[in-house]
Amino acid sequence: MAGEEPYPRKILQYMEGFLVSKTLFSACELGVFERLQGSQLSASDLALALGCSEDGTERLLNTCVSLELLTTNTDPHGTVLYSNTEMSSMFLIKSSPTSLYQSIEYSSRTIYLCWHHLSDAVREGKNQYEKAFGVKSEDLFEAMYRSEEEMVKFMHLMNSIWNICGRDVITAFDLSPFRCICDLGGCSGALAKQCVSAFPESTVTIFDLPKVVKTSQQHFVSNQDERICFCEGDFFKDELPQADLYILARILHDWTDQRSVELLAKIYQSCRPGGGVLLVEVLLYEDNSGPLTAQLYSLNMLVQTEGRERKASDYSRLLSSAGFTHIQIHNTGKIYDAILACK
Amino acid sequence: MAGEEPYPRKILQYMEGFLVSKTLFSACELGVFERLQGSQLSASDLALALGCSEDGTERLLNTCVSLELLTTNTDPHGTVLYSNTEMSSMFLIKSSPTSLYQSIEYSSRTIYLCWHHLSDAVREGKNQYEKAFGVKSEDLFEAMYRSEEEMVKFMHLMNSIWNICGRDVITAFDLSPFRCICDLGGCSGALAKQCVSAFPESTVTIFDLPKVVKTSQQHFVSNQDERICFCEGDFFKDELPQADLYILARILHDWTDQRSVELLAKIYQSCRPGGGVLLVEVLLYEDNSGPLTAQLYSLNMLVQTEGRERKASDYSRLLSSAGFTHIQIHNTGKIYDAILACK
Repeated sequence: MAGEEPYPRKILQYMEGFLVSKTLFSACELGVFERLQGSQLSASDLALALGCSEDGTERLLNTCVSLELLTTNTDPHGTVLYSNTEMSSMFLIKSSPTSLYQSIEYSSRTIYLCWHHLSDAVREGKNQYEKAFGVKSEDLFEAMYRSEEEMVKFMHLMNSIWNICGRDVITAFDLSPFRCICDLGGCSGALAKQCVSAFPESTVTIFDLPKVVKTSQQHFVSNQDERICFCEGDFFKDELPQADLYILARILHDWTDQRSVELLAKIYQSCRPGGGVLLVEVLLYEDNSGPLTAQLYSLNMLVQTEGRERKASDYSRLLSSAGFTHIQIHNTGKIYDAILACK
Repeated sequence: MAGEEPYPRKILQYMEGFLVSKTLFSACELGVFERLQGSQLSASDLALALGCSEDGTERLLNTCVSLELLTTNTDPHGTVLYSNTEMSSMFLIKSSPTSLYQSIEYSSRTIYLCWHHLSDAVREGKNQYEKAFGVKSEDLFEAMYRSEEEMVKFMHLMNSIWNICGRDVITAFDLSPFRCICDLGGCSGALAKQCVSAFPESTVTIFDLPKVVKTSQQHFVSNQDERICFCEGDFFKDELPQADLYILARILHDWTDQRSVELLAKIYQSCRPGGGVLLVEVLLYEDNSGPLTAQLYSLNMLVQTEGRERKASDYSRLLSSAGFTHIQIHNTGKIYDAILACK
């Protein structure tokens, strides 16, 4: 009878956003997609295999079906069997080369809790590590790497996002003229691997904090990768290796403009003439009106770091201040874009 | 160059769900929509008015623009001014008669934290009040009403959802033959008000726990509402008032099938012959394949209560077990649907 009045479908959908995120996160954490890989199971068999309640498992599975993360079919006895969609098999299984599993785990356990303090972050204009995890954040990476476990989780996160976006940003420009490349804050080496694979004559030095380098050597980069080597240091405090090209992938977004220019100027000093710097970042539109993902990530930088996401013109300004010229922007159409500048 | 490979847009969107929710929640909590009601302000003026950092405020506002919760225009000096959209004015301002503000506050402060333990809820098949808030939940409503403040917040939540769905469920059937109506667990009286407004010859007794009744009388229902009265009690333990029609709005979804039938059988005993019961609930499709909102709410019932969302056929079965007949289902096309059954 009623129903003529406006109805806030969009707001109700936004209100459900965290329910959708956590449904995906829990299905991953509990091993649903892992267990269904290559087989189809009933809710009760899957519950048994995962050590979960049957009722809870069934509700979770049915929600995953609506989210198109699972499909169902009914066996001759009328039992509903669940199986992975192609999307789940590709992106939610730990061992898949395009897995987002580790990003999901980090989002669920760390970012979700940080964002509970978004209002305080907006009020105070600073990150909420202390409220969320009881750690001071005067040194950002001391806070983020507050334990071996947290550091490895973070490294997996970095690794996992390059599984799906790495190739696009590395091949955005022809980097073949740059033989000697240094990936500053290169972390788990995921981009370094993309780099040596795309440009067969390049060698990449991963420059990162000593404990990150050790973990990367242990868990992420095998000795087989002959064209990848490591250098330990803090890029704000220590001397940088000489190189033709420096990569800064998701580095500047952690820092203020001032510290960003400080780092870029230092790179400019070390860079061989004719060399350059490749920035890999999420880019905001010039009028700040989007994309939504970049805006959300910029709020995430507020909640988690000292930095922000920026517009292409912001990065151009920072690069110019440090002396770089010939600035070129490449939009990939995915999350991360690439900017190349020359000395 | 690359970009041919499948790209998990949908999964990335699900991963951002909680960021979107919290953006909306924080903008409400910080008073953005309240302050912009009837005026347009720059980010810096708004930050000043709200006592927030300018940088954080600007990032939040720009994200709200992408979410279509705010619009912008540029003044003659080139300053960007933000104003509410029609949707925000109607649904996000506290004083609006269709406000969702209180639902948003409850989602942000209570449900968000409960859902951090969704994986445990699925594992254990039970609610997570103890982990989320350190309160035992053997008596569900003792846990939910663990403080005066929590109780009032919950009552506001109930009130707020009926602002947008109440009229549809109350007018789903012609209730005019039922003069004496009892709203069991009637809480803040929002449905009772819809009822006396839609059916001018009806009187409604709100039956609820003594402390809920007191709060409802103090904060929600004025003495002006002559056709609304109160009765204190626990519907599982105490005698029910006699009535022609009993309303159970979002009550059975809190409880197991067994307790639901127990309550319905008790209602059947008290109900006058020819009388009935009106259930107001979210309904799952018969094959459990949706709607997504109902599935998410059913997981929420797992995380927060002893119950679940159900299919129309489940409610029919419970009603029949208790003796009710002539069961009619009415889908409203919004979140909540209505089921009428007769004695």
